[in-house]
Amino acid sequence: MPDIQKLLWPRSIAIIGASSDTRGLRGRIVQIIRSHPYQGAVYPVSRSETEVQGLKAYKSVSDLPPTDLAAMIIPAKFVPQELERCGQAGIKAAIILSSGFAEEKGETGPALQEEIKVIAKRYDMAVSGPNGEGFANTAAALCPTFSPAMDPGDVPLLPPAERTRGQVAVISQSGGMGFAFFDHGRPKDLSFRYIVTTGNEACLEASDFAEFIIDEAETDVILMLIEDIKNPATFARTAEKALRAGKPLIVNRLGASEAGTRAIAAHTAARGDDAEYRALFKRYGVIESNDLDEMVDIAAAFVNMGARLPAGHRVAICSSSGGGGAWVADACALAGLDMPLLDAATRASIDVYLPPYGTSQNPVDVTAQAIHERGYAEFARLASCSPNVDGVILVVTGRHPRFLLEDRDHLVALGRESKKPVLIWSYTRPAPVCVDLLSEAGLPLFTNVHNCARAMRAMADYRAARETFLKG
Amino acid sequence: MPDIQKLLWPRSIAIIGASSDTRGLRGRIVQIIRSHPYQGAVYPVSRSETEVQGLKAYKSVSDLPPTDLAAMIIPAKFVPQELERCGQAGIKAAIILSSGFAEEKGETGPALQEEIKVIAKRYDMAVSGPNGEGFANTAAALCPTFSPAMDPGDVPLLPPAERTRGQVAVISQSGGMGFAFFDHGRPKDLSFRYIVTTGNEACLEASDFAEFIIDEAETDVILMLIEDIKNPATFARTAEKALRAGKPLIVNRLGASEAGTRAIAAHTAARGDDAEYRALFKRYGVIESNDLDEMVDIAAAFVNMGARLPAGHRVAICSSSGGGGAWVADACALAGLDMPLLDAATRASIDVYLPPYGTSQNPVDVTAQAIHERGYAEFARLASCSPNVDGVILVVTGRHPRFLLEDRDHLVALGRESKKPVLIWSYTRPAPVCVDLLSEAGLPLFTNVHNCARAMRAMADYRAARETFLKG
Repeated sequence: MPDIQKLLWPRSIAIIGASSDTRGLRGRIVQIIRSHPYQGAVYPVSRSETEVQGLKAYKSVSDLPPTDLAAMIIPAKFVPQELERCGQAGIKAAIILSSGFAEEKGETGPALQEEIKVIAKRYDMAVSGPNGEGFANTAAALCPTFSPAMDPGDVPLLPPAERTRGQVAVISQSGGMGFAFFDHGRPKDLSFRYIVTTGNEACLEASDFAEFIIDEAETDVILMLIEDIKNPATFARTAEKALRAGKPLIVNRLGASEAGTRAIAAHTAARGDDAEYRALFKRYGVIESNDLDEMVDIAAAFVNMGARLPAGHRVAICSSSGGGGAWVADACALAGLDMPLLDAATRASIDVYLPPYGTSQNPVDVTAQAIHERGYAEFARLASCSPNVDGVILVVTGRHPRFLLEDRDHLVALGRESKKPVLIWSYTRPAPVCVDLLSEAGLPLFTNVHNCARAMRAMADYRAARETFLKG
Repeated sequence: MPDIQKLLWPRSIAIIGASSDTRGLRGRIVQIIRSHPYQGAVYPVSRSETEVQGLKAYKSVSDLPPTDLAAMIIPAKFVPQELERCGQAGIKAAIILSSGFAEEKGETGPALQEEIKVIAKRYDMAVSGPNGEGFANTAAALCPTFSPAMDPGDVPLLPPAERTRGQVAVISQSGGMGFAFFDHGRPKDLSFRYIVTTGNEACLEASDFAEFIIDEAETDVILMLIEDIKNPATFARTAEKALRAGKPLIVNRLGASEAGTRAIAAHTAARGDDAEYRALFKRYGVIESNDLDEMVDIAAAFVNMGARLPAGHRVAICSSSGGGGAWVADACALAGLDMPLLDAATRASIDVYLPPYGTSQNPVDVTAQAIHERGYAEFARLASCSPNVDGVILVVTGRHPRFLLEDRDHLVALGRESKKPVLIWSYTRPAPVCVDLLSEAGLPLFTNVHNCARAMRAMADYRAARETFLKG
């Protein structure tokens, strides 16, 4: 097995095909690498330029100083010969961002891809792609990709360390979609350790990266977008390893539709086999979702809740809005969750705070009045103590921060001390200060009610699958 | 039938229970009304204060100058006597924001609600509530509500007139959820004419407001959140009128789950009857959705597309990301849409722009390279000309504005000239300048792929239902 460590953690990287023109992809990759504080050496390789974006450029791979990783962004027909040169130069890892291989009509592309496989094998190189979009390693601040999502923007590569309760890795055949997970998740204070895009997977496939990431034991949740599983046995071994380690895999397998299959066949030359996947997924507690935001939201719930997964499907709902409570209840029912009446003792403990038009049954209609007087956290805490439920969904309005901010200490205590998972749905767009506060409290905030309900369900199912697996 | 015009378009409003304390709901309603440029007179009524937030306060309803609308926010037990005083004073409309009526346990609340009905009838008053959260009339800049969503914030009450292709009204029993539609929709440049919250609907119900709004003929789409339909015949008449007028009703009926029913019974004392609703909805082309963002997104699609609704279920997908194209295809299949191969002539017209690793089949994998060279709009235009499809979904990345901005003129032309609906999905969070550009172009922008697919389906189904209805 080639050394993925060299690929994801290179001390030096050569960009083969680097350009000064930052309007093109060959210039963008250099620009993006240089815009982050990567500590390793960056060596542009260019036939035509002696300097690329302020860096000394090398005429050929054979002129390079010792190099760990080659990123290739040159026409497909030149890739095999350059990869061969890399092998001869002792470079042990490569990512191929060029297109025009097995995804192309005709015989040339697929033949070129075969050549890559042979060369990679000959030199025992770790090769990702072709037709990928590179990767990001946030801890190393290394982003060899042309994805615009990795341009320095409004959110830094990583959230502050004190907000990081766990890390997420993305592995995706599709480059655009892979980095889209990062783009959607970072504003939610989710911490991404890796985004790896694998393209056609001529050599390394998603499962190989997943296995490396699980073995490394720095990542808590893995998001995968799969067009094809080249080697089901590898995937099964990886999924089993992930379940044993308690690292949830959240997977969307594209191509559920005929047109989707047609699209991925043209895209990464992949083919699907539904029944096989489904059986694997079920056996190893793999969480399936076909919605990008939902996948990110489920990952955030796992990261924040850690070991506090629901022991069953029974949920208490606490809401300041009666209509909001009803909407969550409907969403929970759709997600296959139960909302039993709370026990008498818990109801009595809640009732002392409620006006006569509130109710403690379940959903608990806390009423705006009681929220004004007692805040949100106390009701979630009381409900979570009911022996009748396995988790709590708290409905808030995060538009105006006052009630959440005044309740800060209790919310932080709730996030720290609750023994059962507590998820928050804000039915209005939350103010940034509320997003911040709930992130500080470690309480996962959802803006979509169905994602909230499905996250609770996914956590319960995952816990059940893992307990069954560890027993069996 | 009492006069809803007086309620929604008053020349003067009295706030019964008004307070100077803006931390409480009785002060908030005055604060919110005063924060918008409503041109009518505002009369606080307070037993204890002679001035409320700089306005002269009246001791009693009987001291008021002639007044069109009374907004009541006083303890439930005082509501009947004050409503009676309003009737005697010749006030012809009232909204009751107080809680403690039919939604309350015991006999007192329901009895008070009965009293309200009797008084309203005696004086032929238009009464909304109790247990509502008031309303907003954006054209009049009148927001008699304590909903934090109506505080002046980062987005004005209305988008610029030149961006307004149509208007949306919200009618919701739940106050919190009613204003949440506005809160989610305004950042998408959706123009809301009314948000009406109806609470327990002791007198006026959602259908009454819907009928008024349809007759007024200034609103293009109505979003409804319903907990109960008190009078199915009224609803049926309204739905029929809406279909005839070509004003889609997009409805979520809460209480689909047992716990949801329990919640709404406690909330607005409502009860459901599923089969009856379903039959009505189907007959009159009512669009059902249980997701707040999806409802807003579908409304935006209708408003932007106007009469250009898909003649069938056949969609062309154009994507710069192969994975993105496959994801949309899966979402379309789930939504019951078809993605037939494009016809040979259309394919030939697209193929001239594509590199060999792109494909014009459907999904059209345009490739990033071709987008860089030709922009997005041209591919959507070409695909929309295929006789094999009824609409187009264009997949973009809106994170970095360059390619969309460089394509501005073509996108604006596409929005203006396309004869078939074109919907846009951005798989990255769109930059504000891209949101702005697509709003200018009148091309509905989705950040969730499923909402995009479901909007296309809803538009096709609505057109089919309306054509059947008008024929029959």
